[in-house]
Amino acid sequence: MKLATYKDGSRDGQLLVVSRDLHSAHFATGIATRMQQLLDDWNFLSPQLEDLYQTLNQGKARHAFAFEPQRCMAPLPRAYQWADGSAFPNHIDLLSRARGAAAPADYMDDPRVYQGGSDDLLGAHDDAVFADTAWGIDFEAELAVVTGDVALGTGADAALDSVRLLLLANDWSLRHLVPGELAKGFGFLQSKPATAFAPVAVTPDELGAAWRGGRVHLPVDIAWNGQAVAHIDAGAEMALHFGQLIAHIARTRRLRAGSIVGSGTVSQRDATAGYGCIAEKRAREIIESGSASTDYMAFGDRLRVEVLGADGASVFGAIDQRVASLGAGG
Amino acid sequence: MKLATYKDGSRDGQLLVVSRDLHSAHFATGIATRMQQLLDDWNFLSPQLEDLYQTLNQGKARHAFAFEPQRCMAPLPRAYQWADGSAFPNHIDLLSRARGAAAPADYMDDPRVYQGGSDDLLGAHDDAVFADTAWGIDFEAELAVVTGDVALGTGADAALDSVRLLLLANDWSLRHLVPGELAKGFGFLQSKPATAFAPVAVTPDELGAAWRGGRVHLPVDIAWNGQAVAHIDAGAEMALHFGQLIAHIARTRRLRAGSIVGSGTVSQRDATAGYGCIAEKRAREIIESGSASTDYMAFGDRLRVEVLGADGASVFGAIDQRVASLGAGG
Repeated sequence: MKLATYKDGSRDGQLLVVSRDLHSAHFATGIATRMQQLLDDWNFLSPQLEDLYQTLNQGKARHAFAFEPQRCMAPLPRAYQWADGSAFPNHIDLLSRARGAAAPADYMDDPRVYQGGSDDLLGAHDDAVFADTAWGIDFEAELAVVTGDVALGTGADAALDSVRLLLLANDWSLRHLVPGELAKGFGFLQSKPATAFAPVAVTPDELGAAWRGGRVHLPVDIAWNGQAVAHIDAGAEMALHFGQLIAHIARTRRLRAGSIVGSGTVSQRDATAGYGCIAEKRAREIIESGSASTDYMAFGDRLRVEVLGADGASVFGAIDQRVASLGAGG
Repeated sequence: MKLATYKDGSRDGQLLVVSRDLHSAHFATGIATRMQQLLDDWNFLSPQLEDLYQTLNQGKARHAFAFEPQRCMAPLPRAYQWADGSAFPNHIDLLSRARGAAAPADYMDDPRVYQGGSDDLLGAHDDAVFADTAWGIDFEAELAVVTGDVALGTGADAALDSVRLLLLANDWSLRHLVPGELAKGFGFLQSKPATAFAPVAVTPDELGAAWRGGRVHLPVDIAWNGQAVAHIDAGAEMALHFGQLIAHIARTRRLRAGSIVGSGTVSQRDATAGYGCIAEKRAREIIESGSASTDYMAFGDRLRVEVLGADGASVFGAIDQRVASLGAGG
């Protein structure tokens, strides 16, 4: 099943069922009006939406209309939790080496997960608004899951059963604010402004065999100002699967339905796969030549992130954002 | 105006107006059913609730009933944001000195604020459930505010205008998990399980002159297993006011209505005022004698936190929780 949220002037938007090929859509009105409502009452509401989804895919839904991803908010425009992991050792390794540090050896036993802000999540075509390019504006392409309720102490395998939806995200980062926040130890706050999400949330079954072992085994394509900069396998080098990331959070507290848990920047050791964030590109430059030659993003830059399935069709729709200046009323 | 949320089997509970003396209450049905709904549409809904509040205080509300704080969820049982500051230099100073480190000198220019989990907030009388006392179970008594929408780049003074409600909180902390999370730099996740809140949220005008300069100038009383351990002024040594904490968050992103922002553990240099968390008590012991003699909390322990107004009456109602073991089905 594929779902999205249309802008309607409200804070939570309007829940849509979207056809598998992303061509058509149907309001979920009569079943649920908001995405969180579905997550709150998944077992009762999701079968009804599945029925509508099948009807829509068969071209038989009576009030279907053309799907316009430009009209989408984030699938969850605001969420009660957004916790983001760092599950790709290559990402940790590159960034550590570039600053002359050793990568932590214990990432499998002691996952890196930070609590992100979730009160304001961006739609796939929303401008990403910043006040200052001197902050080092960077993207981070990643996969994420939306959970149901997860009990305190749930283990990694059982945690996977809580996965309700898969998302594609762009975790905007302000790189020059990161060192200060890392040093304080209080985590990322100013360095992690609002995260953006692809238009469509999908149930794991939509991915078929590409969803296995708690990972999304599909490539993430990234284009920066129209130029391809990445074609990175989101599963191959994800050392910790989503169940392990959820279990890390659940060790001392339960998670409530609608919690979003991210993988961290997708990353591959093979440099020809490209980079899931500019910080990695710069890290490779620093390691190779002693200094970074690639700048972070400028106002007016565009970023596109997309995942194509084995059939070549877009799974989540594309994130396609413009970096905008607050000063320009952007 | 005073507001609370009654348990009704739903995730968000039922919004109540509570009389100033906390003796009686009235469902807000017909105006708003949930606290977040009020925050989403404050300007339209709050005057209607104020009218009901006045009627209730006059004893003229037709369907009033006795207020039972035991039936309360957190005023916001789940929130889109819970960001917690560390605004009391004495707290930072004591904890730094106890581990042989210097307190950071820049806390006024570079506030300590961490992003907390907000998908599961505890009611004032809910058990605080933990799996293991070896984690170092500690309380942290603090004040918090609930904001309306705050624009990106809002300054400290303007940010104060966004304060809609004041809360009293107990930010449960697992002390022995803190050093590892501080070292990772990703912030507090496992070390900060679900936070509890006093039954009643109050509008700032309820405090009269005690709400000034963006601070709550009232003492916080804490009793651990029935023994008073603190009578700490929540305003006197709060170096950063709530507007400054909100502005710190708003530097790189806007805040959306219903964001909760905390002061961090209330603290006073005068040791006779007691301690707002056990970690401070232990820090004083370590500084004075080289080792800590006070243990963290045990299963079955009780913690009570309350703020009395100048008139001696409870402002928010009391937090009164039991530390329970997950293993005991607690």
